[in-house]
Amino acid sequence: MSKQLEVVKLNEKGDAVIILDQTKLPNHEEYLTLTKEPEMWQAIKLLQVRGAPAIGVFAGYAMAALAQSLKELPYDSFKEKFDALADHLNTSRPTAVNLSWALNRMKKFVSDHKEDTAELCADLIKEAKTINAENLAMNQKIAEYGVTLLHEGDGILTHCNAGYLACLGYGTATAPMYLAHEKGMHIHVYSDETRPLLQGARLTSYELYKAGIDVTSICDNMASLVMKQGKIQCVMVGCDRIAANGDFANKIGTSGAAILAKYYGIPFYTLGPSSTIDFNTPTGKEIKIEMRDPEEVGEMWYKEPMILKEIKKFNPSFDVTDHELVSGIVTERGIVYPPFQENLKKLFRK
Amino acid sequence: MSKQLEVVKLNEKGDAVIILDQTKLPNHEEYLTLTKEPEMWQAIKLLQVRGAPAIGVFAGYAMAALAQSLKELPYDSFKEKFDALADHLNTSRPTAVNLSWALNRMKKFVSDHKEDTAELCADLIKEAKTINAENLAMNQKIAEYGVTLLHEGDGILTHCNAGYLACLGYGTATAPMYLAHEKGMHIHVYSDETRPLLQGARLTSYELYKAGIDVTSICDNMASLVMKQGKIQCVMVGCDRIAANGDFANKIGTSGAAILAKYYGIPFYTLGPSSTIDFNTPTGKEIKIEMRDPEEVGEMWYKEPMILKEIKKFNPSFDVTDHELVSGIVTERGIVYPPFQENLKKLFRK
Repeated sequence: MSKQLEVVKLNEKGDAVIILDQTKLPNHEEYLTLTKEPEMWQAIKLLQVRGAPAIGVFAGYAMAALAQSLKELPYDSFKEKFDALADHLNTSRPTAVNLSWALNRMKKFVSDHKEDTAELCADLIKEAKTINAENLAMNQKIAEYGVTLLHEGDGILTHCNAGYLACLGYGTATAPMYLAHEKGMHIHVYSDETRPLLQGARLTSYELYKAGIDVTSICDNMASLVMKQGKIQCVMVGCDRIAANGDFANKIGTSGAAILAKYYGIPFYTLGPSSTIDFNTPTGKEIKIEMRDPEEVGEMWYKEPMILKEIKKFNPSFDVTDHELVSGIVTERGIVYPPFQENLKKLFRK
Repeated sequence: MSKQLEVVKLNEKGDAVIILDQTKLPNHEEYLTLTKEPEMWQAIKLLQVRGAPAIGVFAGYAMAALAQSLKELPYDSFKEKFDALADHLNTSRPTAVNLSWALNRMKKFVSDHKEDTAELCADLIKEAKTINAENLAMNQKIAEYGVTLLHEGDGILTHCNAGYLACLGYGTATAPMYLAHEKGMHIHVYSDETRPLLQGARLTSYELYKAGIDVTSICDNMASLVMKQGKIQCVMVGCDRIAANGDFANKIGTSGAAILAKYYGIPFYTLGPSSTIDFNTPTGKEIKIEMRDPEEVGEMWYKEPMILKEIKKFNPSFDVTDHELVSGIVTERGIVYPPFQENLKKLFRK
């Protein structure tokens, strides 16, 4: 693996979760050791740990660590307290699917194993580590499929942060970049800063740089010029939800990058685990765009006003990219090419 | 006229220039009264006054005001001192064409009028006011032609600041918006924030809001979504240089907005005085892109770092928009439509 920071891990004793505090990046690398549920709840709430897969793994570790303090209890009171802690932790970010998914998995593990609680506590650590390992393996597969799309010397544009800070391991959109780098390929990544919250500037360029990858940070509005100058051979972005026809939602600005890529004849890929594909959503039209606090547009990360409070701001968090703009969807099961409607079904609905 | 702030004016006595300090916007409306050349030099240098046309008018007023202190001198020493002041003021921003143009015009006026210096000083005030009036008349014509492109209820996207803060009067890209507003039309402007220096956020949304125009500030990467949502009926931007074939240079991000407009079938116009057309530049390929300090990309207006110093940044100040993306060029002499090569010549090289 490339030199990546450890974003989420369990301590050796298994009773604390250690996380890299992402709110302090890029200026400070600070780790937090969390042992109590309120601190863990707050870590999610304050985005000290962020990104759906990272939150999922964190939740597994958090429940394993919290279980250790209940080790002396008989099974029934253990289960009651364990479930209550999980349910409360789940309120920290109600819309994060991976959070409730991981918490439910840990709760199910407890209800499926009516055994000696000391033994159960040891098994919960194993279960949490399995969640982590499964996630890493998925990113590994995405890396292996994705790297086949890259060539020596390629310039790659990415948007937002779908790297290891959000997804652990290789990340998703970044997975082929890390693997290419390990294979000794020379690639150059252009990282859109991704306004308003600047995940590209603060996080993606940071993590790629730390891993020794050649990265240049640009403002979102510079993508057209770098493409025109021939600096970009492909675009790789993450995805929040993929509809059955291949339309997909991702961080605001993704659809614009896709349109520019189409105009300049540059292939455009989205990368993510197959759990992102939602066959119940026929097209992008059915994906609701989450709106965030308009004042984020009037402020920068460090909160200095640059637009009068009275002036209206518009702050959609995501946009939807039409499947006609997408060259391929890279998943842990392979690369899906158009026609997506047909080929997504073939690969995932056998 | 709409309720616009006075950006540059001469005081009543004619011996001082009063400017709105644009470095304090949008949080403070502060006016500076400048009577000495070093203060005037600094006002240009520090971008307290900015925008090519505004700098040109400022330079005229500045020389008229400075002349008043030389009123008692005989013509020859008057001229010598006047020219020296003009030549020094010209060093404040060597690449600003309107600055040297206005200073040369004032110098020429002095050398053309070997008369009593008290009388000359009064005439210099008139000449400076003529420069201002000519600029206002040009913007008025751009407004009149441009407003014919707008319809009741239109949404208009603009990028950077080509408004009255930069161009005085109606501005250029904003000219049809102000005139439409005066005519009682309801328009809604979406103002790209325009990273890295945020001229759209800090200046355009500010001046339109102050004039009572319905404006919403967005991040540059949100343009695709607002277009897709049907909120934009046309795009209007300024221009720094127009090549003979209609390709034009403007603030970084303009070409991306043009490509999005083409994709969504939205007309895209650039607006500017005919002095912007450079027949000696055959196409956009010959326009050199000015590169600025990369650290601007790693900072916000208020200078808090958000990207490690060590990480590379790319900071082109402009990009070139291909003429195939342009629906029309609005000038003070009329609207030029494709084929631009032919039609620009027809209108301006008769």
